[in-house]
Amino acid sequence: MKWSERAWENVKPIYDKILTMPFNQELSNGTLPKEKFIFYLAQDAYYLLEFGRTLSAISGRMQNAEMIMAFAGFSTGAIFAERSLHESYFAEFGLANQVQPSPSTLLYTNYILSQAAYANVEVAVVAVLPCFWIYKAVGDHIFAQQDNDQNPYKRWIDMYAGIEFAAAVEKAIAIADQMAAQANAETQAKMLLAFEMATRLEWMFWDGAYQMEKWKV
Amino acid sequence: MKWSERAWENVKPIYDKILTMPFNQELSNGTLPKEKFIFYLAQDAYYLLEFGRTLSAISGRMQNAEMIMAFAGFSTGAIFAERSLHESYFAEFGLANQVQPSPSTLLYTNYILSQAAYANVEVAVVAVLPCFWIYKAVGDHIFAQQDNDQNPYKRWIDMYAGIEFAAAVEKAIAIADQMAAQANAETQAKMLLAFEMATRLEWMFWDGAYQMEKWKV
Amino acid sequence: MKWSERAWENVKPIYDKILTMPFNQELSNGTLPKEKFIFYLAQDAYYLLEFGRTLSAISGRMQNAEMIMAFAGFSTGAIFAERSLHESYFAEFGLANQVQPSPSTLLYTNYILSQAAYANVEVAVVAVLPCFWIYKAVGDHIFAQQDNDQNPYKRWIDMYAGIEFAAAVEKAIAIADQMAAQANAETQAKMLLAFEMATRLEWMFWDGAYQMEKWKV
Amino acid sequence: MKWSERAWENVKPIYDKILTMPFNQELSNGTLPKEKFIFYLAQDAYYLLEFGRTLSAISGRMQNAEMIMAFAGFSTGAIFAERSLHESYFAEFGLANQVQPSPSTLLYTNYILSQAAYANVEVAVVAVLPCFWIYKAVGDHIFAQQDNDQNPYKRWIDMYAGIEFAAAVEKAIAIADQMAAQANAETQAKMLLAFEMATRLEWMFWDGAYQMEKWKV
Repeated sequence: MKWSERAWENVKPIYDKILTMPFNQELSNGTLPKEKFIFYLAQDAYYLLEFGRTLSAISGRMQNAEMIMAFAGFSTGAIFAERSLHESYFAEFGLANQVQPSPSTLLYTNYILSQAAYANVEVAVVAVLPCFWIYKAVGDHIFAQQDNDQNPYKRWIDMYAGIEFAAAVEKAIAIADQMAAQANAETQAKMLLAFEMATRLEWMFWDGAYQMEKWKV
Repeated sequence: MKWSERAWENVKPIYDKILTMPFNQELSNGTLPKEKFIFYLAQDAYYLLEFGRTLSAISGRMQNAEMIMAFAGFSTGAIFAERSLHESYFAEFGLANQVQPSPSTLLYTNYILSQAAYANVEVAVVAVLPCFWIYKAVGDHIFAQQDNDQNPYKRWIDMYAGIEFAAAVEKAIAIADQMAAQANAETQAKMLLAFEMATRLEWMFWDGAYQMEKWKV
Repeated sequence: MKWSERAWENVKPIYDKILTMPFNQELSNGTLPKEKFIFYLAQDAYYLLEFGRTLSAISGRMQNAEMIMAFAGFSTGAIFAERSLHESYFAEFGLANQVQPSPSTLLYTNYILSQAAYANVEVAVVAVLPCFWIYKAVGDHIFAQQDNDQNPYKRWIDMYAGIEFAAAVEKAIAIADQMAAQANAETQAKMLLAFEMATRLEWMFWDGAYQMEKWKV
Repeated sequence: MKWSERAWENVKPIYDKILTMPFNQELSNGTLPKEKFIFYLAQDAYYLLEFGRTLSAISGRMQNAEMIMAFAGFSTGAIFAERSLHESYFAEFGLANQVQPSPSTLLYTNYILSQAAYANVEVAVVAVLPCFWIYKAVGDHIFAQQDNDQNPYKRWIDMYAGIEFAAAVEKAIAIADQMAAQANAETQAKMLLAFEMATRLEWMFWDGAYQMEKWKV
């Protein structure tokens, strides 16, 4: 059994909760309040920047040309997505350019940044994997449920399920499996934990957006 | 005006909230439920380990002997404190050796670890300063309020106000001021923000303990 | 005066020595022994991989979208150049895929990698600048001296003076100037030193290739 | 066979060359020219500072209390040794406070700093091991050869063979073996390579001192 298959099985309960959480249900059927969607977009823009930095940092820790280039390319892709958000939705909704991260967003971004700087590189690689894989699976799921053109979030949902992102997700999973295949049992276990934690942080990211989470002080 | 004076003024509103938050009030008058104190101790042990790692990482980014040694010494002090917790309170309360961090604890530890790895070193230095300075000020405040020996948390409160920790706090503030004095206005502003964020995370750490915060998924 | 102008003035003596050193003179007039050129190519391939890693690491330490993307893009460019070397010259000369770095190459790559991980980011940025700027200036100089098609290194020299690389060099210099403009005098001085050291290491890289430098033990 | 036994066997040829190289022979019999000894001391002071930074950085990447503390303690020890050099020998010989590293010194320090920041932590740990183990073995060897009190370098040689340093060396080897025991074959092989490279750099450090190595530009 590939590491990625074990990892997916391991986070299946959290993934199921992500599919049924209010944010994604209401995004899917078009009833999500607009201010929650806007809150989410702004946090996503902040997230993508830090995700890009993390991917670059992991690229710097790789030791062969293919891996260095793959992660530098992922980083460029993340920053490109962040820019697109700013240029399209941010303009459309009149959002400020600078975004303050919510506690859940800051928890997620600092978790992956820390893994990229301190953990062994195999573990760092799978800490960023949920943002590829879980995100993609959720996007595909929501996309498949669409049956009319009336959903105000249609444009966003279409983007979710793009071909380019699909190729990146596939490559990221393949790299994780390749690294896991060379890792010993202890490292593989750490990889499962990091993948699970980041999946949990994906849930919290959506939940935080739905709650429009604020700092208490 | 020293940077540290501006920084303190800037976080004064959060500091005031920390003094009056239920956890510290009840710790001070001895009415804090024991299970909340135990929750706090376990999180503190986890925190101290990561705080130690962060201090070591900052030591590695310093460029003169005095600074490298100061932060390596701070790290040793933090780990020594963590060990003391395990050897005294953990044994007394029958706690498990391994601690799972709460969301607020993980947010705080990953914030400081990330600053130590990615930010310019002046900023990293002040991201760890609240855990010295705020903690010390709160400890002194609670210690000063004690008027009898009946507080079940007396032993903990006495430790709060130790001389050795006081010397470390003073040194950490002096280093921050020294670095700020050589920094330009933009860096000084970033230093204020990092000090404020870490102070906010101190508040969340105590609040999380009082709530006995759990992961939602 | 821009920081980059001061920096160039400061390394002018080393740059002049680079132009007149045997490796570049003989490359320019076509008399460079083939085995020295091959030694150089192999070291260059090793260097480019580590240069790419360094650029990615710097990207991870940036704080705005434009900078993160610029350095991730530089990294991709470096790895792409490394791959081109392998696919064209390595095949042509029957070189082994894996290259052992010479002492000078290892000194240069570890110097820039260390700066990217430990120094403040302004300093890291200029530690990689000579590999853009000095290299480009030397390439242009040699290209301008060509007056016939008989030089066996023509294809290499033509590549040296490409438009794409020119754009990257210009962007890297502009970023350095932008960061220097916001830095205080002490940081600007450290930036000059790092730029000078990396220029010196450029000289040593070419010298090491000409000597076909070996490890003594 | 313990990893450390394989590692020692693997570097035995380089170790033998270190014992017989002129610097150590002449140090041992007291004929080493004083200016070479002074050159060495100054480089050693520079090295120790960077060695201390590296040990701190490794401490920051550890994941349990014992390891974090061990490496922070090693760092403190290295900086303490550096300070002793300055306070005794630097004063005695009227050396400048600031030392410029030679190429070999800079190669060694940047190699270990880079490993601490980018490599998996098991590899970083053994990249710093030769400075403990090889240095200790050479010191003991030279100490054992002393048969009179006329050697002008007696005080230095005595320090070489101290009990405190011996305990640190033993602990560093034990940690390396502990980490290697949990590593897979590929990682163990990388550990051998890093240990060998750092041993080679030990040789170059002594050789550079004997040559009173200068920068060519």
